[in-house]
Amino acid sequence: MIRHTVAFSLKHASGSAAERDFLQAACELVKIEGVQKFECLRQTSLKNSFTFGLSMGFADEAAYAFYCSHPDHTAFVKQRWIPEVVEFMELDYVAHAP
Amino acid sequence: MIRHTVAFSLKHASGSAAERDFLQAACELVKIEGVQKFECLRQTSLKNSFTFGLSMGFADEAAYAFYCSHPDHTAFVKQRWIPEVVEFMELDYVAHAP
Repeated sequence: MIRHTVAFSLKHASGSAAERDFLQAACELVKIEGVQKFECLRQTSLKNSFTFGLSMGFADEAAYAFYCSHPDHTAFVKQRWIPEVVEFMELDYVAHAP
Repeated sequence: MIRHTVAFSLKHASGSAAERDFLQAACELVKIEGVQKFECLRQTSLKNSFTFGLSMGFADEAAYAFYCSHPDHTAFVKQRWIPEVVEFMELDYVAHAP
């Protein structure tokens, strides 16, 4: 399984209705086919400046690619992510047995 | 639950014995009391420069603090992490219901 994560911060005030509305819209991404283990997260470490996170799993690269190019995802990126996110970092993980 | 994660890159060559030895030593951290859901991960996104990740869960802040100050953890940081890691980013997450 591929775990796709993104840590991010919003331009909205903490606890604002705009913040909540963005996060609720982000949670709609769970409906895209192939998205598993969707999580909306708050980032709590003081060692970085991100305030939220999203995490989701995909069975394989094909499912991940399907999500990335899905019109609901690309519309969310264009209409919400780009205008409302001030900084972000994507990290993707697969299990590794050393 | 608090999910403590760190993305990192090593100074060792990819696939080297030194790389494997470091990761195996990191996996010993699972033995510290309170560590749950320990995962050794490979970072696969091309949108950042990190090559590995560790993820673990703690029931609460007290369990997380116990881990941070545990002598096995502080010894690992001093003897392995600082000498062998070239870059890293810590991200901690808790569930967030918008």
